[in-house]
Amino acid sequence: MSPGEKLTFVTSNRHKAREIKALFRSQNVKLNIHFAKTMEIQSENLAEIALFSSIDAYNYLRRPVFVEDAGLFVEELNGFPGPYSSYVYSTLGLDGLLRLVGKNRKAVFKSVVCVYGLVDRPLLFTGNVSGVIAPKPRGKHGFGYDPIFIPSGSGKTLAEMSVAEKNRFSHRGRAVRKLLRWLYKDRRKI
Amino acid sequence: MSPGEKLTFVTSNRHKAREIKALFRSQNVKLNIHFAKTMEIQSENLAEIALFSSIDAYNYLRRPVFVEDAGLFVEELNGFPGPYSSYVYSTLGLDGLLRLVGKNRKAVFKSVVCVYGLVDRPLLFTGNVSGVIAPKPRGKHGFGYDPIFIPSGSGKTLAEMSVAEKNRFSHRGRAVRKLLRWLYKDRRKI
Repeated sequence: MSPGEKLTFVTSNRHKAREIKALFRSQNVKLNIHFAKTMEIQSENLAEIALFSSIDAYNYLRRPVFVEDAGLFVEELNGFPGPYSSYVYSTLGLDGLLRLVGKNRKAVFKSVVCVYGLVDRPLLFTGNVSGVIAPKPRGKHGFGYDPIFIPSGSGKTLAEMSVAEKNRFSHRGRAVRKLLRWLYKDRRKI
Repeated sequence: MSPGEKLTFVTSNRHKAREIKALFRSQNVKLNIHFAKTMEIQSENLAEIALFSSIDAYNYLRRPVFVEDAGLFVEELNGFPGPYSSYVYSTLGLDGLLRLVGKNRKAVFKSVVCVYGLVDRPLLFTGNVSGVIAPKPRGKHGFGYDPIFIPSGSGKTLAEMSVAEKNRFSHRGRAVRKLLRWLYKDRRKI
């Protein structure tokens, strides 16, 4: 069994599962997925949230797991919605966030992957992507804030990209590629 | 030792400590306070957050404790900022919330007190107060959203009230009075 195949990705988000599955598949690694909601703590630090969640997932499944936590940090809003991006999306929606953003439209999408139970310590991998908040939603792919986030170096929102293209640009793609690089140190081109 | 004096209130918020101290003092009960930040989980359910926090506080102090968690739930915003009120306050501020609220200005301030380690089960006491979001901040007392919350039956915001007056109206006052009633069943007039 290859190192990646020992791992189970635990999530309640089918979009995340799809994106991470595609990244693993590009390395010919089959991804095990377990759909479940893990406990998340309140923290402004995604790594701390992911660490606790991975412990919770491991305690439940008792096999090597990883979780991923992400958030959109809008500069002008002191990082809001940050770690609570999903809650804010489900209450205020994209319109609510657009109403709050003014002149400075800079934002960073951050992702943290935490692996627990594979080696004798937790492993953390982070991925950030800078960009701007679009004036209005565009695109039908992805989920969450994808329709209003334009990564630097692209004219498209994340929701105007296919899964493969989003993975090339996205915070999550970056974090998961670091995990894959760690798992398969000899594959230089991940 | 009276039942209330066996308890330690654990919080990192000196305003909450002041308000709850006043409620205990009005019953001639001395309140033990331990200033510390307890772990909070992400949940849309304040009782769940308070329960986990109280367990965390108890595991740390190993004596009967209580914690209090509160949030402002704005009807038009699907309950936002709810359990994340403190984070939203520190990132968006009052202005951010005021920008989001439209015609329907109804809101509910909710409080949950959770006692752990006193009897053989956790005890939960809740207090809600309905009101409206003021057009702009008024008053210098209190903390958080107090300057923009007008409880039903008052023309003042919570920040225009003394601690004693706020306690009469507030969600926190209601929850803590239920706790005091539970502790001192014979004192009918709490």
